[in-house]
Amino acid sequence: MTSGPAPAAGPEPLSKSRLRLWLRLLKASGHIEEELRRRMRAELGTTLPRFDVMSALSRAPEGLKMSEISRSLRVSNGNITGIVDKLAEDGLALRVAVPGDRRANLVRLTPKGRTVFADQARRHESWIDGMLRGLGPEDLSGMIRHLDHLSRTLEESDANA
Amino acid sequence: MTSGPAPAAGPEPLSKSRLRLWLRLLKASGHIEEELRRRMRAELGTTLPRFDVMSALSRAPEGLKMSEISRSLRVSNGNITGIVDKLAEDGLALRVAVPGDRRANLVRLTPKGRTVFADQARRHESWIDGMLRGLGPEDLSGMIRHLDHLSRTLEESDANA
Repeated sequence: MTSGPAPAAGPEPLSKSRLRLWLRLLKASGHIEEELRRRMRAELGTTLPRFDVMSALSRAPEGLKMSEISRSLRVSNGNITGIVDKLAEDGLALRVAVPGDRRANLVRLTPKGRTVFADQARRHESWIDGMLRGLGPEDLSGMIRHLDHLSRTLEESDANA
Repeated sequence: MTSGPAPAAGPEPLSKSRLRLWLRLLKASGHIEEELRRRMRAELGTTLPRFDVMSALSRAPEGLKMSEISRSLRVSNGNITGIVDKLAEDGLALRVAVPGDRRANLVRLTPKGRTVFADQARRHESWIDGMLRGLGPEDLSGMIRHLDHLSRTLEESDANA
């Protein structure tokens, strides 16, 4: 940084820069998420949690247990139940029995659900592409690398906790 | 990136990298937020929304209207009311009348509230410092620069919407 004189007290302590980065991360991700919620509602007539449930199901052609959906999204089973009920009602998902376990069901997208989700995922990707258009290839690869590194550090701390 | 052969189809399209960055941002910020919630509860006996309300109040020595607190945190007035009631009960904040406006109150931290918050803010900063310790000065300044650029792009889009 060469713009402007150095502050008299010397460079900012690293802990302040890390706090600043966290506040910036929170601001940017909150802003993007809010915009996604708005467009999901206005342009696709859906919600972000519903999109996230369909996204998890789209990656599991065999189906997922309710507890697996809830774990992958970090939200409660109760909320997922309402979303899956509505998806089933709309013909986008169905519950199938697990052979040998009378109490467990797997939730799976229907062919219609897969088609609808594929279209929504394309729209979602193009919105993100537009919102992040200010970031070029090097910016992206640098940030992805740093965020991966950050996530690994956090996971190691979890493992040691 | 020199590790491994290039994919046959050439480099990943930018829209895929941008989507990937968004998913990484979401993962890292979700992880940090979850860990902050846990520590706020376990080590300080408080919650993240309560900390955020005190943080907003700490930056406004004259006090804030309920609507100003709610706007600065992007949460509903209803939730803020419960938090402010509890802070007042605990002697950490108080409501003062606005001269000339019988219906409006300003919420302000008490001296005790300022002391308690200053201690919590120090702890919060040191947690973030620990969680982000894998990022050095250049990593931090690069990411802050990119996130600022990203937030500016998003704000310009909002203004043009």
